[in-house]
Amino acid sequence: MTIGKAPQVFPRSEYLRRLAAVKAEMARREVEALVVNNASHITYLTGYTSLSAYVPQGLVVSVRDEEPTFFMRRMDAPAAHHQTFMGRDKIVGYPEDLIAHPEKDGYDKVIDFLVELGVDGRGIGLEAGNLPADTVAKFKARLPKARIVDFTRAIAWIRGVKSDLEIEIMREAAAISDAAILRAAEVIRPGVREADAAAEIVGTLMRGVNGKPGTALKSMYLCASPRIGTCHIPWTEDVFRDGSQINLELGGCRHGYVAPIMRTYSIGAPSDRLKRLHDAQVESLEAALKAVRPGATCSDVAVAFNRTLEKAGFKKESRCGYALGIDWSEPTASLKEGDMTELKPNMTFHLMLGNWVDEDFGYVISESIRVTGSGVETLTGAPRKLFVL
Amino acid sequence: MTIGKAPQVFPRSEYLRRLAAVKAEMARREVEALVVNNASHITYLTGYTSLSAYVPQGLVVSVRDEEPTFFMRRMDAPAAHHQTFMGRDKIVGYPEDLIAHPEKDGYDKVIDFLVELGVDGRGIGLEAGNLPADTVAKFKARLPKARIVDFTRAIAWIRGVKSDLEIEIMREAAAISDAAILRAAEVIRPGVREADAAAEIVGTLMRGVNGKPGTALKSMYLCASPRIGTCHIPWTEDVFRDGSQINLELGGCRHGYVAPIMRTYSIGAPSDRLKRLHDAQVESLEAALKAVRPGATCSDVAVAFNRTLEKAGFKKESRCGYALGIDWSEPTASLKEGDMTELKPNMTFHLMLGNWVDEDFGYVISESIRVTGSGVETLTGAPRKLFVL
Repeated sequence: MTIGKAPQVFPRSEYLRRLAAVKAEMARREVEALVVNNASHITYLTGYTSLSAYVPQGLVVSVRDEEPTFFMRRMDAPAAHHQTFMGRDKIVGYPEDLIAHPEKDGYDKVIDFLVELGVDGRGIGLEAGNLPADTVAKFKARLPKARIVDFTRAIAWIRGVKSDLEIEIMREAAAISDAAILRAAEVIRPGVREADAAAEIVGTLMRGVNGKPGTALKSMYLCASPRIGTCHIPWTEDVFRDGSQINLELGGCRHGYVAPIMRTYSIGAPSDRLKRLHDAQVESLEAALKAVRPGATCSDVAVAFNRTLEKAGFKKESRCGYALGIDWSEPTASLKEGDMTELKPNMTFHLMLGNWVDEDFGYVISESIRVTGSGVETLTGAPRKLFVL
Repeated sequence: MTIGKAPQVFPRSEYLRRLAAVKAEMARREVEALVVNNASHITYLTGYTSLSAYVPQGLVVSVRDEEPTFFMRRMDAPAAHHQTFMGRDKIVGYPEDLIAHPEKDGYDKVIDFLVELGVDGRGIGLEAGNLPADTVAKFKARLPKARIVDFTRAIAWIRGVKSDLEIEIMREAAAISDAAILRAAEVIRPGVREADAAAEIVGTLMRGVNGKPGTALKSMYLCASPRIGTCHIPWTEDVFRDGSQINLELGGCRHGYVAPIMRTYSIGAPSDRLKRLHDAQVESLEAALKAVRPGATCSDVAVAFNRTLEKAGFKKESRCGYALGIDWSEPTASLKEGDMTELKPNMTFHLMLGNWVDEDFGYVISESIRVTGSGVETLTGAPRKLFVL
């Protein structure tokens, strides 16, 4: 018996629109087939959110075929039939004997297919930056007449401007993020273990809001005193105490799309230093939001933030954010001084204003934002305050 | 102010023992410095479990230094000071301008350090299989006199035989896994959304048992009808129904170490096909366990499982398991026919007997196991039954 299709998150026309943009880029670079192996790019082009990237996988986009062909380990093929928009013949499970095989792997099946397609003497796109060196070498060795073209970040750039359908999904993810921020304010209390509070917050991320659950767990960082100068450490078995500060970064997820948010909590009255930094950061955040509009650059947003913060006597060393979507951080535009990427409607960013000032002191605030036709929409909407518990 | 050390999971002597094994392998291959970038290997050699692998990072093990030197993005350095056993001078945060820089990245700082160490004309180990092709090319271009030696899986093989200290941590992780399996049997009910049940199960994985919480979230797969022929699909927003089958794979985690387990649940009476497969799989699992002892091979275990299952009229296409530890699946020994890796005391495996028979039918059962001095210890201990709810 075969497995049926899941309810589709996006209509077929949306995937064909995305594929058309990829094929236009392929035509521009004279590439007839593109091997996509980045999992986020595969989600973008097919709707697939299951795990199969732990072993070789490849989505082959050919200029000759409307639908791409997806190669993966055979036992993962039913999930691809279920989740993707493509027809049954476009999902190819490669045999189990290629797992932990001393000489061959799933990429050999992808290469066989490129030969069958008759493109082995043409331009072939590879996401080489995502592939181990020996895999790139294998493609070159087995396709000696092909002109290999690097497409590592090409689809990430195409993903930069979202459709209205994608924005709607990101709003759903942001609503979950907001709920988790508020849940944190309820469960962070003196004497509670960090792990127990984290479990409650993750529970909200999974149960979701408005009848729409979280569909995957993304990273969550709960950095509590004495770890508030760290940014990516896991929760611990310590308990919160009077006077503890907690820096929280989390992101609700819907169908692959994430909408992160950061907020800072204080058990008891915050220190003067923390209050002053919070006030300065919120003022600077608002200055950054005012700088967001089509035609402005990423750099403009960072300049607005940095100059405002400096006037208040503080400084943030790291960039002010990055492109956002299926990846928490898309490897394209950065909200940093000197990044001249022009803002366009429906670009989305994590305006990430975490500021790790000293080894033992940091503060976090952020919003997921969208560039609109004339300014900015803040997707996340939790109170922009220092939560005093 | 500086950040202090976290309570250390392992004593310094344990890390030095692991490093000594790595340095012995380096000496054997005439390598004077090894650049470790695999996050699990860094956890193994330092105790670090924070996230910094989203940008370039490298742990340099030099034959001349007792402690390794860890390069990472500057804002992640406090977490490394806090978690690792090394001295302050062994943690080097590289500057923020290397993030999203058009030409340089953190690996340039690692290469600078290799030059300072004076090993640029010697043997240098790289985990090339974990590195993008252009990073490997950069090492070769900037270190033209070095003899680059591939160490991709060397540390993974060294990790294969655990210390008693590691086994104790894995027992803690396994106890969490067992609790989550039992929690699933309480919360999976007709009319409950998959996402809500998943949230409860993850809550147990995070809160842990015996006062020992889970320290990170590893993957969890809850594949319910009609998705029981899939193995790595996320939970959905569907509700469970009378007659639903649920295949669950999860793993408690303690300080980086994971101990996975799989069990199958049926809401209402299971079908005859499911009952027969379950009985056959449990009998075959027990046959596999009997084959585990020092001196036997991975292949012997798979043969014991496969022949028993075949006698009952079933077949499992995929391998019967894989090495286990900090990674859910260590990329070394496989429990499959033909893998002649010899079992040694304190090797650990996920005896993974998930069997995806058809696109619309599968069954899962597994145990995390340890090879003892004379046989096998089953780390996970949840009832080895088909849970009928």
